[in-house]
Amino acid sequence: MASTDYQATERTIPTRSRERASYDRELVHSILDQGYLCHLGFVREGAPVVLPTLYARVGEHLYLHGSTGSRPLRGAADPGLPVCATVTHVDGLVLARSAFHHSINYRSVVVHGTAHQVTDPAERALALDAIVEQVVPGRSADSRRANARELAATAVIRLDLDEVSAKLRTGGPADDPEDLELPYWSGVLPVGRAYGSPEPAGDLDPAVALPAYLSTGSDQFRVR
Amino acid sequence: MASTDYQATERTIPTRSRERASYDRELVHSILDQGYLCHLGFVREGAPVVLPTLYARVGEHLYLHGSTGSRPLRGAADPGLPVCATVTHVDGLVLARSAFHHSINYRSVVVHGTAHQVTDPAERALALDAIVEQVVPGRSADSRRANARELAATAVIRLDLDEVSAKLRTGGPADDPEDLELPYWSGVLPVGRAYGSPEPAGDLDPAVALPAYLSTGSDQFRVR
Repeated sequence: MASTDYQATERTIPTRSRERASYDRELVHSILDQGYLCHLGFVREGAPVVLPTLYARVGEHLYLHGSTGSRPLRGAADPGLPVCATVTHVDGLVLARSAFHHSINYRSVVVHGTAHQVTDPAERALALDAIVEQVVPGRSADSRRANARELAATAVIRLDLDEVSAKLRTGGPADDPEDLELPYWSGVLPVGRAYGSPEPAGDLDPAVALPAYLSTGSDQFRVR
Repeated sequence: MASTDYQATERTIPTRSRERASYDRELVHSILDQGYLCHLGFVREGAPVVLPTLYARVGEHLYLHGSTGSRPLRGAADPGLPVCATVTHVDGLVLARSAFHHSINYRSVVVHGTAHQVTDPAERALALDAIVEQVVPGRSADSRRANARELAATAVIRLDLDEVSAKLRTGGPADDPEDLELPYWSGVLPVGRAYGSPEPAGDLDPAVALPAYLSTGSDQFRVR
């Protein structure tokens, strides 16, 4: 339904490859839900800064966390910090006969907005659980939750999903007709995330079994 | 040798986890050379924008390219565009007994600087070859190089590696001593890139063999 789409804005309409842009809410959610690392951009003394950071999506919010000493999180105190959070999945390397038409298949989401510090204790606890769950589903209930001291050392910020767009490329190379006879291999090399065998901590009691949610045969952690 | 390190600056010294920061030139190069996608940050109308884009490292330069119509590339006309380019590799999910000590193992490089448009034809050709090579080593000589029309449609920008830092986390979880007896599995789940079987274009002449540089058994494309 069109009513479920995000509203395009001047800055979420790309100047090029507009056919690759989407404002579909379900698509945006699926791209966000398949990741856990975003690149967070903000402006410091007039210059851009981009830092990798974990996130969780909860409904129409992104939550990010960090030390109360970190610069962007301190900067999100009232009236908030203008940010741009971008999540990208690379799905394939696209090899055309011509260098010019080389590309990658990818799915990305760009979120523009103002990040605000979360101060409500219940929302902070929810956000921290969600970030653990985003990385390893099933883990937040199978670890010790943060105590008061740890909570006090942790800043949580929220970014609402309002000015949001997805962009994606799929499919094979798009060579020019006059290049089709050139003697170069063309096609796609699929790319994905792979997980290795879990490595227990050196001080782990051998009686503690590997939880099912960490099995590399599970949906979440299967090798693509 | 200390003389080969990048010089730390106010904005490349982190406010937290300083022990994870490095200015070692070889380490920075190795992190950049193992990737091909950066997240490029710039400021537009006072607000941060972060976009995924391909890059190549050539010596002490990063090259990026795009359509001559793209906003950041147009913005790099004289006197240049202040940017921040960040490259991140996720190496593992770190599961501690406590939610608080959960982390990821990663290697990242952050480059601050001013991007300039490259207008010299020889440097532009070198940069475009380098971007193809960064993604698929061996490919630039095994494809049709850009013609005059394609070159005219392509903008190339250069960002010098000057104000640069790496940051990395390695190793297992760092639980507090009082948590070691808790009945939760702890350790690291390794993460890496994986490549699938090459998928030939539908219109590929079957007589064109898969090139050796694309073999998923090669160093570049082996499944980790």
